[in-house]
This record gives sequence, C-alpha cells and structure tokens, in this order.
Amino acid sequence: VGPEALSLWESKSTFTSFGVFFLQMGWGDLGAFGEPSKETPNLDQMASEGMLFLDFYTANPLCSPSRAALLTGRLPVRNGFYTTNAHARNAYTPQDMVGGIPDSELLLPELLKKAGYINKIIGKWHLGHRPQFHPLKHGFDEWFGSPNCHFGPFDNRALPNIPVYRDWEMIGRYYEDFKIDLKTGEANLTQIYLQEALDFISKQQTSQQPFFLYWAIDATHAPVYASKHFLGTSQRGLYGDAVREIDDSIGKILHHLQKLGISENTFVFFTSDNGAALISAPKQGGSNGRFLCGKQTTFEGGMREPAIAWWPGHIPAGGVSHQLGNVMDLFTTSLSLAGLQPPSDRQIDGIDLLPAILQGELIDRPIFYYRGNEMMAVRVGLYKAHYWTWSNSWEEYSKGIDFCPGQNVSGVTTHTQEEHTTLPLLFHLGRDPGEKYPLSFASDEYQRAMERISVVVQQHKVTMVPGEPQLNVCDKAVMNWSPPGCEKLGKCLKPPESDPKKCFWPH
Amino acid sequence: VGPEALSLWESKSTFTSFGVFFLQMGWGDLGAFGEPSKETPNLDQMASEGMLFLDFYTANPLCSPSRAALLTGRLPVRNGFYTTNAHARNAYTPQDMVGGIPDSELLLPELLKKAGYINKIIGKWHLGHRPQFHPLKHGFDEWFGSPNCHFGPFDNRALPNIPVYRDWEMIGRYYEDFKIDLKTGEANLTQIYLQEALDFISKQQTSQQPFFLYWAIDATHAPVYASKHFLGTSQRGLYGDAVREIDDSIGKILHHLQKLGISENTFVFFTSDNGAALISAPKQGGSNGRFLCGKQTTFEGGMREPAIAWWPGHIPAGGVSHQLGNVMDLFTTSLSLAGLQPPSDRQIDGIDLLPAILQGELIDRPIFYYRGNEMMAVRVGLYKAHYWTWSNSWEEYSKGIDFCPGQNVSGVTTHTQEEHTTLPLLFHLGRDPGEKYPLSFASDEYQRAMERISVVVQQHKVTMVPGEPQLNVCDKAVMNWSPPGCEKLGKCLKPPESDPKKCFWPH
Repeated sequence: VGPEALSLWESKSTFTSFGVFFLQMGWGDLGAFGEPSKETPNLDQMASEGMLFLDFYTANPLCSPSRAALLTGRLPVRNGFYTTNAHARNAYTPQDMVGGIPDSELLLPELLKKAGYINKIIGKWHLGHRPQFHPLKHGFDEWFGSPNCHFGPFDNRALPNIPVYRDWEMIGRYYEDFKIDLKTGEANLTQIYLQEALDFISKQQTSQQPFFLYWAIDATHAPVYASKHFLGTSQRGLYGDAVREIDDSIGKILHHLQKLGISENTFVFFTSDNGAALISAPKQGGSNGRFLCGKQTTFEGGMREPAIAWWPGHIPAGGVSHQLGNVMDLFTTSLSLAGLQPPSDRQIDGIDLLPAILQGELIDRPIFYYRGNEMMAVRVGLYKAHYWTWSNSWEEYSKGIDFCPGQNVSGVTTHTQEEHTTLPLLFHLGRDPGEKYPLSFASDEYQRAMERISVVVQQHKVTMVPGEPQLNVCDKAVMNWSPPGCEKLGKCLKPPESDPKKCFWPH
Repeated sequence: VGPEALSLWESKSTFTSFGVFFLQMGWGDLGAFGEPSKETPNLDQMASEGMLFLDFYTANPLCSPSRAALLTGRLPVRNGFYTTNAHARNAYTPQDMVGGIPDSELLLPELLKKAGYINKIIGKWHLGHRPQFHPLKHGFDEWFGSPNCHFGPFDNRALPNIPVYRDWEMIGRYYEDFKIDLKTGEANLTQIYLQEALDFISKQQTSQQPFFLYWAIDATHAPVYASKHFLGTSQRGLYGDAVREIDDSIGKILHHLQKLGISENTFVFFTSDNGAALISAPKQGGSNGRFLCGKQTTFEGGMREPAIAWWPGHIPAGGVSHQLGNVMDLFTTSLSLAGLQPPSDRQIDGIDLLPAILQGELIDRPIFYYRGNEMMAVRVGLYKAHYWTWSNSWEEYSKGIDFCPGQNVSGVTTHTQEEHTTLPLLFHLGRDPGEKYPLSFASDEYQRAMERISVVVQQHKVTMVPGEPQLNVCDKAVMNWSPPGCEKLGKCLKPPESDPKKCFWPH
C-alpha cells in the first residue's frame, strides 16, 4: 500500500480491528448483485457505504477448503485441505474425518495474536473436529459455534449430533440442545450468533483491545432455518427468510460498531465460502445470478462470490472494484492492516487488497479453480481457461443430483471428467459471464489469450509444492462421541472400535 | 393518486413534462440490476436518485407490438398489433408490411396535444411505415428517426434501405447517408439522437411549453453499433460499447434537465421493449440476468424489463417498487400527470402508477404474456401460469436459432407448441425467478394459486374484444421505395407491382 493510503488510516486510528462475515450465499442472493426480490437492505447499504467487489472468488467450491484458505492465505492444495483418493474430488471435514488443519499451518488469528489482537470465531469452524484441531489451539481466543455444519445427523441417536462449543467445551448438541425444527425450518441460532457478536464487540470496545471477529454462521446451508420472526417474510421462501435474518443481523452488527464509535477503526469484509448450492433449489437453494452452475463446481457459479469491503472514513462510499480477489487475500490484507508481514517461509497465495481498496489500483493476478489437487481452470484478466470440466457423474445425475439445473451447456457442464489440457476451453467472462460460448480454437483471440495464460499456468505448476493431503482418511471412532464437557452434561457416547478407511468423495 | 401526493407535485410545478427512454436492453444489462461488469453508472445513478421497478414488464416479447402498447395503453391484441396467420406467432412491421397503427387508436401524444403538450419522437417508430401511419399523423409534432429498425437491408441496392426522417420528409437512408460500419460496428447515430434530445429540451425550456419526449433509439439492436469514442471501451464487447454510449447519453439528458432547472417538472421513465435477444449472444446480445430465455419468448427473459422512474423532488431517492408494472402503464400514468382522463370508450390495460411511485402502494393487477392473439401465460402476484409454451420450432432450432442458449429446461422451453390450458405449468417467481421448477399439480399450493389465477384469466377472456389484426398482409410494393422527400435527394426508387401475400412469421 502506498504512503498516502497508509497515512490516511494511520492518522485516524491507533489500531484496526477486523470483522469477517463468511457466509454461504451465492453471488445472486444480494439485492446489490441483482437478486430480483431485493430483500437485503442492510447488505445493500453496506455496499453503498463501502466497496463492492464484482470479481471476487473463493479458493474452492466447497466449505472446509475455502475456510482453510481464508485463515491460512494459502490454496487448499498447499495447506492440505484436499483429497487424493480420487481425481478432481471435492472434500471437507465430516465427523468421521481423521484429518484437519495441520499444526504447521500459520493461521491469521495466530499471527494477529502476537500483535495484541483478541480473536473470536462465531459459528462453523470446519477445519477438523478432533482435539488437536480445536480453534483455540490455532490462534482463536474464543469460540462459540460448532466444528461442523448442522446438516446431519438429525438426532438419529445412532451417531453423535454435532456439538456446539463455548470455548474449550461442548455446551450441547444440535437438534438436542440447540433446536432446529426440520419441519417448520424454525431455529433461533442466528439470533444467538448475533448476540455473541454484539457482546464480543462491546467487550473489546471497553477493553480498547484490537480484535478479529470471524462470524461464520451457517443459516443458509441446508437444512435452511430462520427464527420465528423471519419465517415466511421473504418472497423467496425459507432460504430467503434465512438470508433476511442474516442481512438484518449484519445490519445490527455494523450499526453496533457505529454506535460504539469504532466503525472507523474496524475493517469489515463480507463474502462467501462457495457458490449457492443449486442442488437444494428452489426450496433451500440460493442464487448465483447468471453464473453457470453452483457449489461443488469450478464454473463461475461455484466460486464467484458476493464481496463487500466496509470501513467508514477510509473506503470511499459507493466504490466498485474489478480487482480479481480471493478469500485468501483477507489473510494478507488483515496482516497488512495490523502492520504485520505475512510469513516468509512458505508460499502465500493471498495478496494485499489495500491498494485496490484505498487507491483503486488493479493488481494483475490469476485466479485458480481447484477440485482436489487438480487445477481445473484459471482466470487471467477477463479470460478463463478450463483444463478439466465436470459437474458430477452420470450415475449421480441420473439419480437427480444436478449441480447445474436448467443450465446444461453442451461440452461444458460435462458428466464425465473431460480433459482439455492440450486445448483448454476458453471463455471471455466480460462478453460471456455465463460460460456458454467457448472461443473458437482457431481464432486469433484464442491464441493470444492462451499464450498469456500458459505462462501463468506453467509458472504455477512448476513452483507448486502440495501439502500433505488431510482429507483422505475417515474413521467413525474419531466422531464427536465424547467431546470435552460431555461428562458435565451427561452426553458422553461410547465410540466404536477404530476402523480407518479411505474417505469416499462422490464428486 | 391521493390528495397528498397530488398537492406535492401540483405545488411544485405548473406543468409536468415527460421523457420516456424506450430502449432495447435486457433486465441484466444494467449494473443496478446485477450486470457483473457494472458499466452503466448513469442509469445506476438514475435509479439511486429515483425508483427501481423490479417487476416491470413489456406488453409483448417483440418490438412493434410493445411500442404500440406503450403509446395506446392497450394490449397488442386490442390495438391490432398482432397476426392471425399462424398460432402464437410474434409479428412486427418489416418494410413490406401493409398494416400499421389504426386511425381508430388514440395515442398518448394525440391526447397530450389537447392539453398543450409538444411531442417529439427520436428514433424508431415501428408502428407502420406507409404515409397514413406517419407519427406526425398520430399526435407527434416532431420526428427524427426511422420507421423501422436498421437491421436490414444492408445497402444491397435491390431493396430500399430504411429511410431516416426529419418530421414529414426523408432526409436520407441508413447505410447510404447514415453510415453504420458493419465490420467495425462504428456509427455516429446515438450521438445524433442525443443531440436531438438536448436541442428539443432546450427549445421547450425556452418556450415554457410542456413536452413529451419519446427517445426510442436502437443502438443495442443487432447489428449493434457505437460511435468511435465508445468502441472497445466495454468489458462486454460491442454490445457493451453500445450500452455504455446509451448510458452516457441518458446521463447527459438528465443532467441537461437539471442544468436547465426543469428536472423537478419532468417525469422520466426508462424501460425496454423486449428482453435481450439471446440469439445474438455473445457478440451482439445482451443479458436478461437470471431470467429464462430472451426476446421472442414469453418466459421472464423475454418480457421482464429493467425499469426506472426519475423525478427529483417528487420520487424519493433510492426507492424500490415491487408493483407489477407494464409499459402500457406509462400511457395512463402520463395522462394522470397531465391532469387528463384516459379514453372511456375503449378498454385501457395500463394503470396509473402514481400511487405506487409516490405513495408506495401496491396495486393488485395481473400481467398477461401474449404471442399473437394467444395468451401464453399470466402472472398474478408471485405466481406465473403458462397456458402454452414454446420457444421456437425444432426446424429453426436445428439450424442454430436458439432463444434459450444454455438454458433448456425440460418440458418448459419446448420446441413444439405445447398446450397446458387444462393444467397450466405454474411457477413461483419469488423462489424460482428462473422458471426451472414447475409446482407439483397435486400440491395444495398449486390448487390455491390456480383458483385465484383462473378467475383472473376467465374475466380477461370473457371481456376480450380483439382488434382487427394489422400484421397479416405483406406486399413488397409498399416498401420505402419513394418516401416523401426522396425526389429532393434523388433517392426515389421504383416500386414493383403490388402482390399482397400473407406475412410469414417463423416463430
């Protein structure tokens, strides 16, 4: 960041706190990004007071790897959040996952802690549920939330329900102590997570300590829920109710920062961990606008995310940026704001976005789209080249599992893994954001663009040192049978014998 | 409109002028509606200063009928702008069209004239090109533009090029005197049309006469053009260049109104005559956002339009309306603002939008989707029922003509004309704006919604008195061989013998 921008924020604040809203919404779920019901007044206002990023990406089309990438500033293939059990498979951390975030990875809160920050995660962790992966062992000072998503088991008594933690100990389990009514969709969780955020911010304001708040709640993940006050209020059904409640909560958090007079000392970023899950549409699925397909895929619908930066008094109101951004940039940008350097002993993929945010610069950098350890596609400028395509298998598709409902583009949304490494499928995302019209291989435009892209890809591949894959081994014995605190609640369950197996990832 | 709102504008102005920007852009072509390149700063600002309509429709998925509907306040099936040569066909006014707007129709400018307005059309008329259909015979005082679109013939010398008129006389022809370079896409026309608008507004401000300016230019219609200054400036290719030039022009016109101090006396509305033509995508086609299909179809992509009302000092800035609106409403709303009643001797389909615009009311009204004289679909509230579906024929489709590229939804985007009159296909446009998931016929929701819709449809059909169809007969002898003024320019051509035939409409 240049000296002018630096002096701008240094003059106004002795320290900068960070808030990251890491949600599970699609590009097209926000009014500011064109959702036709326009039911996100608070996020739209956040955008109009801050800066809208139109070309912002997540690091993976699935939750766990994206979260690992945000907190490490590194691609999942480097930080170990991938599988090699099969080619080009998405993987995450279900309850029987043996692996998690390696100790060797340096997480944003670990680094911020050294600079005097207090760090809290509210919501879903998703970087491993075994004791060694606990967020308080990886830099967070406080935690209220769950190690996994609430999507199962649904209180079936044969498997442990997902535990909810306060700091070191479990204080209950989803469906048992933290109710989610699967019939009505009612749950009070977003309100609880909101109150946690407000209380945490109030406390830090009193102590004058800089903070990092990672608000990673999961109300829009299937099974979708909302609290009573919001049920039935959206034109979009239950999913819209959940979006409205999240929008309302974010409005309240931003308003709280303003009321406490610390909004100018708090850099806030909103984005998402993957595209909306179109398999859950229309009842529980969101929208990726006009982008192709959704979650699980490396088409734009799977990885292009809504993104807003907000920092009153620093970021000009109503700004719009075409900077190619990535959730990994939040790592590097936060360190930059805290006056810290990113670690120099490893490859960091995230870049410092401050020149883009404060000075309107456009930094030339590619976006890589991975499934597992396979680089499926790359974006350079407005061009995107697919080296591999597939959505999911014919076998799954024939059972009704469709990541691209109503959107099948011949030769693009393939149901077998198609290799295009010799002649990548190339799209111009300005003229064709929906990835419907591959450029002619014979065209000059194709040749010129691929020359530039090939250099980027070659450099990437030559310098790539993959991390040890963490998402290969599953074992029911490691599930949340008896998390710390279970004895106080009388909720300890007996684990089965250990029986480690290769995890199976269907897509 | 209620007394409060009335007094609001009556107190501020002795008269209200009108500007209607009637373009050919899709819902998804504006940044304010979610176009990812966000290249329409002036339209976005118009929206932020005025009111965005999110549920606004045109009266037909094709140009001529929509234009007839806007100016008469009546559905094309009433004002005669349809064909009965085949079932469910779109029709317009090519140069060999014998018919046009009937004298019996009362056009908005005819009515406004009686209240002292001066009316000008700039751009495409499209309501018939023979002398009796001339816009100056139907209420306009001034015209600069063409009776038809510029999409052909392309100076092939065997057929007359489209004439460009100033008032009563032709002053040249497209491609001959008004150049459009089909190779580079360069044409200066939008700049000429912009200057016409600025000059007209200046003149009226001097004379203190209320005006109606109908700015109906066609730069985004294929073959797309832009002037040199805008060529190559968009991320979206030539189509985006044209959009940027239109956006820039609209910004200049609004700024001109403000500079002259008459913006508070001028009600301005921006909308479109049909959805973006996806057959021209990606090089010359726009975007309908996440809506299904495009121009020529009765899916949302064919008829849902971007719409913005702007009237500083009257319309609250940043307003958003979910009022179901239609281009026909501009007829009734303009009359209301001029203190006039709509004609009582005929059915008027347009409603007065002022209660929605000034008081935030939601008026219950249906939207009808026609092709020819067939009611294909109807929207009531958030439900849309399709009674007939088809995009275009298999024969056309097999030749590569596709109105729904990359969007084929099984059983919905059909290539044969499918009748659903007994059990309409029903969609909930809130949960499913992309019309991908028809509701189950057996569901309670289907039953409840269809009960309500059936009443609306029955009432509509019982009271429907179709007008005499004007778009059935074609004859090369009536083409623009020798428009008035041709002799001065030495541009009179010899017409062939009259040979009237049924017009052929492929879709």
